[in-house]
Amino acid sequence: MKEIVQGFPATSNDDYPLNMIAFMKHAAQNYPETEVVSRNLDGSLRGSTYGEIWSRVKRLAKALEGIGVRAGDRVGALDWNTHRFMELYFAVSGIGAVLLELNPRISAAERAYVLNHSEARFVAVSASLLPVMEPLAAECPTVQALIVLDDLGKGLPRTAFSRAHDYEGLIKETDDDFQFPWVDERSACTACYTSGTTGKPKGVYNSHRAMYLHTLAIAQALNITQDDVILQIVPMFHAQGWGMFFCGPMLGAKLVFPGRYTMEDPSPLVDLLVDQKVTVTCGAPAIFLPMLHHIKKMDPKPDLTGLRMISGATEPPLALMKGYHELGGARVIHAYGATETAPLVTVNHLKPSLKDLAEAERWELRKKQGFPVPGLDVKVVGPDGAELPRDGAKVGEVHIRGPWITRSYYKDSRSAESFTEDGYWRSGDAGTIDPNGYLKITDRFKDLIKSGGEWISSIDLENAIMAHPDVLEAAVIGIPHPKWEERPLALVVLHESARGTLTQEAILDFIRPHFAKWQLPDEVLFVDAIPKTSVGKFAKRVAREQYAGYYGGARGE
Amino acid sequence: MKEIVQGFPATSNDDYPLNMIAFMKHAAQNYPETEVVSRNLDGSLRGSTYGEIWSRVKRLAKALEGIGVRAGDRVGALDWNTHRFMELYFAVSGIGAVLLELNPRISAAERAYVLNHSEARFVAVSASLLPVMEPLAAECPTVQALIVLDDLGKGLPRTAFSRAHDYEGLIKETDDDFQFPWVDERSACTACYTSGTTGKPKGVYNSHRAMYLHTLAIAQALNITQDDVILQIVPMFHAQGWGMFFCGPMLGAKLVFPGRYTMEDPSPLVDLLVDQKVTVTCGAPAIFLPMLHHIKKMDPKPDLTGLRMISGATEPPLALMKGYHELGGARVIHAYGATETAPLVTVNHLKPSLKDLAEAERWELRKKQGFPVPGLDVKVVGPDGAELPRDGAKVGEVHIRGPWITRSYYKDSRSAESFTEDGYWRSGDAGTIDPNGYLKITDRFKDLIKSGGEWISSIDLENAIMAHPDVLEAAVIGIPHPKWEERPLALVVLHESARGTLTQEAILDFIRPHFAKWQLPDEVLFVDAIPKTSVGKFAKRVAREQYAGYYGGARGE
Repeated sequence: MKEIVQGFPATSNDDYPLNMIAFMKHAAQNYPETEVVSRNLDGSLRGSTYGEIWSRVKRLAKALEGIGVRAGDRVGALDWNTHRFMELYFAVSGIGAVLLELNPRISAAERAYVLNHSEARFVAVSASLLPVMEPLAAECPTVQALIVLDDLGKGLPRTAFSRAHDYEGLIKETDDDFQFPWVDERSACTACYTSGTTGKPKGVYNSHRAMYLHTLAIAQALNITQDDVILQIVPMFHAQGWGMFFCGPMLGAKLVFPGRYTMEDPSPLVDLLVDQKVTVTCGAPAIFLPMLHHIKKMDPKPDLTGLRMISGATEPPLALMKGYHELGGARVIHAYGATETAPLVTVNHLKPSLKDLAEAERWELRKKQGFPVPGLDVKVVGPDGAELPRDGAKVGEVHIRGPWITRSYYKDSRSAESFTEDGYWRSGDAGTIDPNGYLKITDRFKDLIKSGGEWISSIDLENAIMAHPDVLEAAVIGIPHPKWEERPLALVVLHESARGTLTQEAILDFIRPHFAKWQLPDEVLFVDAIPKTSVGKFAKRVAREQYAGYYGGARGE
Repeated sequence: MKEIVQGFPATSNDDYPLNMIAFMKHAAQNYPETEVVSRNLDGSLRGSTYGEIWSRVKRLAKALEGIGVRAGDRVGALDWNTHRFMELYFAVSGIGAVLLELNPRISAAERAYVLNHSEARFVAVSASLLPVMEPLAAECPTVQALIVLDDLGKGLPRTAFSRAHDYEGLIKETDDDFQFPWVDERSACTACYTSGTTGKPKGVYNSHRAMYLHTLAIAQALNITQDDVILQIVPMFHAQGWGMFFCGPMLGAKLVFPGRYTMEDPSPLVDLLVDQKVTVTCGAPAIFLPMLHHIKKMDPKPDLTGLRMISGATEPPLALMKGYHELGGARVIHAYGATETAPLVTVNHLKPSLKDLAEAERWELRKKQGFPVPGLDVKVVGPDGAELPRDGAKVGEVHIRGPWITRSYYKDSRSAESFTEDGYWRSGDAGTIDPNGYLKITDRFKDLIKSGGEWISSIDLENAIMAHPDVLEAAVIGIPHPKWEERPLALVVLHESARGTLTQEAILDFIRPHFAKWQLPDEVLFVDAIPKTSVGKFAKRVAREQYAGYYGGARGE
């Protein structure tokens, strides 16, 4: 890092710590009547307000201290997207402990690793997810007690852990006469372990300061106000659910928690979107697409005027953006980030100077990742580590630095390869930045396909294929090839209506105009499903292993 | 201050300093083409872009170092609202020096005090304001050199200071190959001396951290985006012009600088408002009222649809708010702050839960100061220092604390009486907070009128009188009275058309329905002008002295 220059002392209150609890207190004082809606497991809705939630958060904090949670403790949380999960975020971090996000979709071994690596002392778990925790009782000796969120309505269940508390009981038996302490803003507020496809999870411990600045940044970047209604679609264990439930209290905006939902049945999300008059949500094409398909079958179709859907993970297909646009002008806004970046890095707004672009160019532009949120340093660098020109053409690795970006993994030797000496995180993404400042991710470096000495972007091929109206999903992977080192193979999931009728040639003809001949996949394979990671991304490493011998080549590694 | 609890170490990049220069760099990288318009002294417009400004800021910073400006130095700035003033803010603070705001309207003695108290080493001054500086050459020995902004086009003038540099010459003779250092975020970025009506000015030194957080906060509170066009009406020497020129680069919004303007001739401001399609501006009724009067004489009247006018200093009169509302729905938004608060504390938005209020109630509500920006602690306290209930009735002193609020004056023994031990600034304002969170300032504590053992609010009376269509301005002051201790006296400036015709009784009849009989002023005095402070507020102390014997009483102090 650069040397820090000392200037003249200020009279500002610079010792006033940036603490996340301030936002919930703000909501309670200024928006006590604003609604917080949470969908129960049985589909019914629980209505609440920031006034009530604040009282519950204070009770919970007091009760947590009562059962032995101390400042600095790591407290795991394993729940669906509920108001209780939000309460845990505020209460746990409010007393100086760390809310450890637990992913219900990773393997038991990985979960054990996360609990042991973080030395978690408590785990809050919903009764419906208890089966995921139970096998770990013997393996995770640091965990002293469970706090059970009884979403099944069956009371405190039996558990293999030595101690268990009932969440609602703790809240009920305590009063809300509680003053939150001031926590050092550099203390960890949340911890999230990355769930990559290779190796053990890596721990990102976000400070209060980082979370606070990120909340301000994302509210500004997405232009969220008190008049918005926020639907918490991004799982709350995944990069803090993009901080939507932090924005809600900070701005006094109504929050809607969908509880448990699946990609297979998006109807609860659509119902909430429409019934609660949602105006802002965050998610990914993996969930926004099935929602759109569901909506298209509705009669009459809902009017989604004013809705902004912030879409991450992968480039939003044109069909997705246009499909929502046709529902009253709802906007799918591409944004980019990662667990290491807390997560927001870029967001795609059309700049005023580009308002006169032709419609087709505007859509094309909106597929890019967007430009950086103020306060971050984002650049693409070449193999020698030097910054590449912002010409929209030179592809390099995307490096990111800033006040809410992590600069190491917790107790992890892999930090050395993932961060530069001057504080940048090496994202592993390959991308370009154009003269207008827009970042475009062209691929994961490790997913680029090396054919005859040239690079082929798997993502460009996937997006082109997914633009076909009969295609539900597509992944393109590089497969060892005896002559060309690697050649692309396309795995395609079709909509049911097209299964058995659409041919490989039809797909290739569809994308042919956009690629050089040597860039086209040698084969298109129709499959029932594409392997996915726990957060819904294509698990290309798994797919590459599965089809490794498909072209008769041998892996050169 | 409370004890700070240490939690668990985070992996976030918490050493990354919050520096204001990051926002200008952000604008240059992502909005190089966005316009910056600055009105010259002769009324012509200078067009520029963030790309050009960034190059000039780097050249200026390099040149400043070249002429001997070091980190920590205080560099005065005395200019109208121009792009150059903005360049100075970024370049001076960017190299770790402090931009010292100099008010051209205060007395020479006060200005000398500010320069000597701050030990300023350099002063940047526009040629047209040089006469204000010249008499101080002998009195201010710390000032080594002037940097002259040649707004008169006559070249470097003769000066009594030993050294003078030409601003444009410095920029021209340097290149923009310059890397800004990282400055400790707790170092002062700007310094502003309060210009009260009593005593010497008091120094508020705002850290980079405070300015950075304030910029994020005001952008969020006023909902400013890249699509806005900002007109910098608030003087840039007054509480950093409310940080509008910091918001512009941070958001990539177009900025318009009006240069020199006067309350007497608001036509340049109105022209810019209309021609540049301004959507956001900040000011006070003292300037928004003459602008409105000017607009009302225009034919056809301009359509100000979408315009937000953030109005501080005093309660915006209903006629002002309604007058702009009639011009396409332009909104006058009441906000509250002070030099000590950097300045934003509260802003008045209608909460979603209050959208169904009757129209008259909505207007009434919009006169309040509004609710606090997230991150601040705002309360009203009784004489014993205890917080009063938020019932909209109990009047107490407004106390304010938070990350961008000052917690002492620089080298000033008066700090002890102005700040509490737990870090609150005692604002000296009397106010209430209602159950919805809205703050209402009822008076300055020292302007409350004590009559027969009861308190009368001078501001309530003023606002009632100023609602009369023939009244331009009104100030109400407490005058010593032989029987009642003090009694109210109203000083009223009429519109020219009403002068000589409107009577004292007509004014009293107009306000009578809103007050108890004993609260009404004993006399209404029609005057040509009301004494004002250098920032346009009523100088009530001066007026009280002027009319001290009016009721034949003696000051009891």
